Amino acid sequence: MRTHARSYPAFFLAVIASLVVCTAALAEADPLPSWNDTNTKNAIVTFVEKATTEGSADFVPPAERIATFDNDGTLWPSHPIYTQLAFALDRVKALAPQHPEWKTTQPFKAVLDNDMKALAAAGEKGLLELIMASHAGMSTAEFEKIVTDWFRTARHPRFKRPYTELAYQPMVELLEYLRANGFKTYIVSGGGIEFMRPMTEKVYGVSPEQVIGSSIETKFEMKDGKPVLMRLPKIHFIDDKAGKPVGINEFIGRRPVAAFGNSAGDREMLEWTGAGSGARLMMLVFHDDAEREYAYGPANGLPDTKFGTFPEALMKEAKAKGWVVISMKDDWKRIFAFDQ
Amino acid sequence: MRTHARSYPAFFLAVIASLVVCTAALAEADPLPSWNDTNTKNAIVTFVEKATTEGSADFVPPAERIATFDNDGTLWPSHPIYTQLAFALDRVKALAPQHPEWKTTQPFKAVLDNDMKALAAAGEKGLLELIMASHAGMSTAEFEKIVTDWFRTARHPRFKRPYTELAYQPMVELLEYLRANGFKTYIVSGGGIEFMRPMTEKVYGVSPEQVIGSSIETKFEMKDGKPVLMRLPKIHFIDDKAGKPVGINEFIGRRPVAAFGNSAGDREMLEWTGAGSGARLMMLVFHDDAEREYAYGPANGLPDTKFGTFPEALMKEAKAKGWVVISMKDDWKRIFAFDQ
Repeated sequence: MRTHARSYPAFFLAVIASLVVCTAALAEADPLPSWNDTNTKNAIVTFVEKATTEGSADFVPPAERIATFDNDGTLWPSHPIYTQLAFALDRVKALAPQHPEWKTTQPFKAVLDNDMKALAAAGEKGLLELIMASHAGMSTAEFEKIVTDWFRTARHPRFKRPYTELAYQPMVELLEYLRANGFKTYIVSGGGIEFMRPMTEKVYGVSPEQVIGSSIETKFEMKDGKPVLMRLPKIHFIDDKAGKPVGINEFIGRRPVAAFGNSAGDREMLEWTGAGSGARLMMLVFHDDAEREYAYGPANGLPDTKFGTFPEALMKEAKAKGWVVISMKDDWKRIFAFDQ
Repeated sequence: MRTHARSYPAFFLAVIASLVVCTAALAEADPLPSWNDTNTKNAIVTFVEKATTEGSADFVPPAERIATFDNDGTLWPSHPIYTQLAFALDRVKALAPQHPEWKTTQPFKAVLDNDMKALAAAGEKGLLELIMASHAGMSTAEFEKIVTDWFRTARHPRFKRPYTELAYQPMVELLEYLRANGFKTYIVSGGGIEFMRPMTEKVYGVSPEQVIGSSIETKFEMKDGKPVLMRLPKIHFIDDKAGKPVGINEFIGRRPVAAFGNSAGDREMLEWTGAGSGARLMMLVFHDDAEREYAYGPANGLPDTKFGTFPEALMKEAKAKGWVVISMKDDWKRIFAFDQ
């Protein structure tokens, strides 16, 4: 009888233990809870299972599991303007007292007057001037502090939250899911490499050494007996369009097996990724959700935009090559972590 | 009695098990068996213990454990000439039949005639011409194959072995010791990034994405409907001297806590590393072993060299800043894995 009496608690403990294990297993069963159960989600899971199943024809050895992600429009919004442009405009305003000549000189006058029409008229040359005035002339350490402080205080004009809270929750889950399956996740963005690095670890779990981006030149100098890297007003590398495979090759030295973008700027990265052999996954985020985020094309008849254009030709190429187009509206249960 | 009889084998098993454990522990006790027990070895072990002891004032969080290594003269020989220069000379000879004009044009004529005096007279401009003729004009995939094939067949003129067998065994152990303690080991070399990548994993255990080096420009192109990266005869980045901190900042985005070099080309990398706070280790390999490898300075009165110069001023700076100078002769039990 004592033996039986003892075995009851043991039995219950076993039941409880197995319940805990089963619950954990069920929780594990959906690594992508913010994705609706569509073909898109299925394409991701199928790819990961093939790539990680030893003995499968599509098995990818862990060292070769490289996944590259564009940032603006792919991992967080690029509307109403690129986050880095919002930073540049804020910086010009903050620096204006030291530059009285800006009151009468374009494109600075346009920024100080909030004259978006004049700013657009300044074109790419004007934009470059704003970037150089706001991004160069200080050390890398000083710039890191400026960027970090800005991310702490700046708010997105529509969502009224810090930009660092605007990561797309389904993409954050995708990044984590890939990493949990042995992938190294890289950001490969047209944005400034040193603008992104202060926030990527916190926002996406991507460490600085896995961030590739555009850069200006820096110069090693001794200042008061201490070495510094000074940021110069000269473009070093543009990590966009045909520059993305170049940047990937230079920084990683391996071809990705998965690549994620959202615009014409990501076309060559997806082509480069897709041209490798074995399991591949190429995806494009399509912004068709004006209600929860934004809707733009011009593909599928949506309005055109300067900030992440998705032309009809890209949609055609995606279909022809088997790239998966993510519909934000249909494939994503929620956009942001703070969404219901 | 039965109980006793049973306990004997158990006792012996326990003894054997503890012997196995102790032997393993003893084996683990010296992670640097090719290093003599000198202050130099002690400096390495002390640094690693401080950096990895949680709660210690010098503790370095795993994510920040970045160690950077120069290649030529630090991880393998840079004499009698840089390995990559030997490759360039071999390539010029192999390509000569397609370039009949080289028979009468310098610096190519000098290479084909094995006229080292005329080659030296061609200077840096001549060297650059040789590099471009041998390193550009093909796709990155083609270049990788050319380099891989060359490493398979080329032999070092003195040691009569493949260059890939000439890694300094003490440095290979140091790389492994650091990785075993959570460090990410990077190569930061003046050598070509795409010349090194085909061999660094095999020779040093360093994966392609942890190799930083000099580069020429590459261009994304469609060839027969397939994307390729073509190598252009134009310098993109020189990862030497003041370029090393620039390259480290661009590729890694973190300041190293340990850096290893052997020549004037590594000075700024060590200064940059040393200027950070917390535990630091800066080391320079000094080639003072003509018998087992090479001896050159001009520091300490040794002969000067064009391939990895170590000037008196560097020796002075090392002493003033507490950088550890490794004497190959005194600190290394063996140089190569094949040494006794």
